[in-house]
Amino acid sequence: MRAMFVTPYAVRFADVDNAGIFYYPRFFNAFHVAFEEWWERGVGRAYHLITGTDKIGFPAVHIECDFRKPVTFGDPMEIRVGVKKFGRTSVVFRYEIVHRGTGAVHCHADITKAVVDMSTWKPVVPPPAIRKALESIAIKA
Amino acid sequence: MRAMFVTPYAVRFADVDNAGIFYYPRFFNAFHVAFEEWWERGVGRAYHLITGTDKIGFPAVHIECDFRKPVTFGDPMEIRVGVKKFGRTSVVFRYEIVHRGTGAVHCHADITKAVVDMSTWKPVVPPPAIRKALESIAIKA
Amino acid sequence: MRAMFVTPYAVRFADVDNAGIFYYPRFFNAFHVAFEEWWERGVGRAYHLITGTDKIGFPAVHIECDFRKPVTFGDPMEIRVGVKKFGRTSVVFRYEIVHRGTGAVHCHADITKAVVDMSTWKPVVPPPAIRKALESIAIKA
Amino acid sequence: MRAMFVTPYAVRFADVDNAGIFYYPRFFNAFHVAFEEWWERGVGRAYHLITGTDKIGFPAVHIECDFRKPVTFGDPMEIRVGVKKFGRTSVVFRYEIVHRGTGAVHCHADITKAVVDMSTWKPVVPPPAIRKALESIAIKA
Repeated sequence: MRAMFVTPYAVRFADVDNAGIFYYPRFFNAFHVAFEEWWERGVGRAYHLITGTDKIGFPAVHIECDFRKPVTFGDPMEIRVGVKKFGRTSVVFRYEIVHRGTGAVHCHADITKAVVDMSTWKPVVPPPAIRKALESIAIKA
Repeated sequence: MRAMFVTPYAVRFADVDNAGIFYYPRFFNAFHVAFEEWWERGVGRAYHLITGTDKIGFPAVHIECDFRKPVTFGDPMEIRVGVKKFGRTSVVFRYEIVHRGTGAVHCHADITKAVVDMSTWKPVVPPPAIRKALESIAIKA
Repeated sequence: MRAMFVTPYAVRFADVDNAGIFYYPRFFNAFHVAFEEWWERGVGRAYHLITGTDKIGFPAVHIECDFRKPVTFGDPMEIRVGVKKFGRTSVVFRYEIVHRGTGAVHCHADITKAVVDMSTWKPVVPPPAIRKALESIAIKA
Repeated sequence: MRAMFVTPYAVRFADVDNAGIFYYPRFFNAFHVAFEEWWERGVGRAYHLITGTDKIGFPAVHIECDFRKPVTFGDPMEIRVGVKKFGRTSVVFRYEIVHRGTGAVHCHADITKAVVDMSTWKPVVPPPAIRKALESIAIKA
């Protein structure tokens, strides 16, 4: 059972590189964009309010990522965002970029984020509303 | 009277620079993304088909651009795309990034694009279907 | 007679787009990088000190730009930075991206920048040291 | 004993994000830039010749990455590129971004790249000249 947030991703003209495929550093930007869309449309509280008003930020501390198939301009993709694991002051997010036609996962990443107070950059236990949001996309085994 | 294509633009966490405002080179990327969205949702033929199948491309040849107000993370913006002027083998696109709350135009650009055959990179008169698409967003005086 | 700052520019694998040429929004980023290099190596005071310590910033207010020839991966380019015109609280920078082999200018831009106090974002007359730096790359007729 | 290629990295005004620190997806771009500089200045054969003439490419297949300390605008950094492990048709590159003043490693990544024939995208054993180049930055225990 899974409860990941899903958002379409339109591959852009400028996402590809000189080899004609999605430039792999941009996957991490695409994942961050999906993360922002999840806050806005999935949770209902835009990410600029989380960082600017609630003063909670999520700096990356660790990434493990597999690239399985290239993505090219025009491929109909979607990005899935979930939470794979909770630490006390950290969260492991799971991202997948998936072909909407074939269902193939072209790239997936587990990104460990610290939860920090944006005023002090110290790790904090996520406040209840944020914990609840994170739990709404927890991936169940 | 105007007939511009309008699409919401979510300012991203990474769009801002060290000064805390939208990094101005990225406006041109945002305009290109809006241009791609216009093909997909406004015209109904995705841009990868225009460049890849129809073999028509639009390299930029000239830009005039005014930055009037900064854009910051969380600002609710939209981008408008129109055609200001037709040449025989060129088109002047008009782009505006507008605050959805105040209606203020924060940045606008007139971008002259050549129309080229992607196989030869030679200028061409736009084929009828593309001409028709361009006319659908012509800005009337 | 000219006195522009010149810096080599290595076209990167990811600078090109799906059409196999330098994606034009990235020229403006390349120009900004050359601007930062000019502060560091031409003036001898890194740009983070200008913005962070001297509290002087240069937001763009107007761009006019011509794209004359495409740039592709592997082209040996250089970027030239000069000052074309001084206003009281503004400066018109001139940027050119030039092929080191042929001398051809592939793209040039005149970018008008306001000079602002980074604490207040109000326009200011450039302090003497900054004025002197700008004059060192003034383009003489 | 180590034999990594080292290149200075100037943190750019636009590398930081809304939180005022280096936006983590851009580390992977910075590593790719260092990889291209290694080919050009370390090996003496520019990367556009490797991909365009020799028809050898290095698509990423796996990443493991640790972010230990943030990087901010003005930090004097360098990037180190090495080869950690050889497969038959793959290579594990090691990247580190290091503070030139303190010597602290702010981020390091092990990036597994396939070696492919750019005409067919099939994995290939690296030709001798490329193998030799890769061995020149092999990290010894």
